[in-house]
Amino acid sequence: MKIAVLGGTGNIGIGLSMRLSIAGYDVIVGSRDEKKAEEKAREYMSVLESMGYENEIGYASNRKASELCDVAILAIPSDYIFSTAESLKDVLDGKIVVSPAVPMKKEGRTFYYAPPPEGSAAEKIASILNNSQVVSAFHTIPARKFADMKSVFNWDVPVCGDGEAKETVMEIVNSIDGLRALDAGPLSSSRLVESVTPLLINVALRSGMKDLSIKFV
Amino acid sequence: MKIAVLGGTGNIGIGLSMRLSIAGYDVIVGSRDEKKAEEKAREYMSVLESMGYENEIGYASNRKASELCDVAILAIPSDYIFSTAESLKDVLDGKIVVSPAVPMKKEGRTFYYAPPPEGSAAEKIASILNNSQVVSAFHTIPARKFADMKSVFNWDVPVCGDGEAKETVMEIVNSIDGLRALDAGPLSSSRLVESVTPLLINVALRSGMKDLSIKFV
Repeated sequence: MKIAVLGGTGNIGIGLSMRLSIAGYDVIVGSRDEKKAEEKAREYMSVLESMGYENEIGYASNRKASELCDVAILAIPSDYIFSTAESLKDVLDGKIVVSPAVPMKKEGRTFYYAPPPEGSAAEKIASILNNSQVVSAFHTIPARKFADMKSVFNWDVPVCGDGEAKETVMEIVNSIDGLRALDAGPLSSSRLVESVTPLLINVALRSGMKDLSIKFV
Repeated sequence: MKIAVLGGTGNIGIGLSMRLSIAGYDVIVGSRDEKKAEEKAREYMSVLESMGYENEIGYASNRKASELCDVAILAIPSDYIFSTAESLKDVLDGKIVVSPAVPMKKEGRTFYYAPPPEGSAAEKIASILNNSQVVSAFHTIPARKFADMKSVFNWDVPVCGDGEAKETVMEIVNSIDGLRALDAGPLSSSRLVESVTPLLINVALRSGMKDLSIKFV
């Protein structure tokens, strides 16, 4: 199965690209800038090589990666995710698209959830990509720790969506060591998961704990 | 310190009454019906006795318990919590009041967060009890497991509020074995914690896991 990590050059895309490759998926790192995608894919391959893996990681523009893939993960900052989805609508037709987006606003030193009128970022993306199968996941993964291949973690990943697309994404999540996918309901319940991220940040800011995620116990 | 557990005869009030007594607090079980409060307080004392504790647990009407206490926990179903707060406003003046309220609605088999226009149940309670120090906590405690004194658990309890009142409530939370209080920001960030509860229920319904709570890891 071919997975495009759009925005795979930064943030949560770094960890996803390497860890999904290790899990055995055919990964394509996407970027607006194909040159940057190539550079990062080579970097990821050399990290994996140092760990004893001889995996190939592909690279392409976000558009080309979307064309080539079966599943696209929108590992793109929330500010650009809707316009990116807009611009890739034709090539994401019929594909499974994963949204980890969390729209937030900051007031003083406190982060709040700032969903669009659709109810959640995931539902807005689904309204843009109305011929794709949108699933939300990976909202609560701390990017920095996830990118560090020496990290050991044990995190739960709530997944929202419908039908087989959700099952496929849950399999993808479970393929990564240290992650456990949990079915959190239909796409419309994404709002309950997206809003966990500002909570994690607020707690982290006040507790001094870093790279927080959640576990359902 | 005297803690009134208003609605201490049911739900999360059961576990709170017994566990706060074990932690060394002077607990008063409150109920609309003083007779029922007495009955439950005697029941809790006999459970504690069977565990080797000779603790006294007080009982009173919600009104009388509010008068007597330093801290009141509103362990009252969300449907009645606002009217109860209204009716006790005069006797809760100047006191620390803890809201575990989570307003929810159900659509199909999915629970959603249904906050009041104030932004969260906690903020609505603070607007009713505008001379009390309102703090929110205990939203994500599964009542049944918490009431079972044989349960062993390790849960995090996000606490929202301001100043010394929040510190006091965090101390109360930390006094209970198996709970860790985490400062989750000002009272207005209660919305981020209240909305975790429907997420826990949705995951529990779909995963078959029971009595779910959270841990920040």
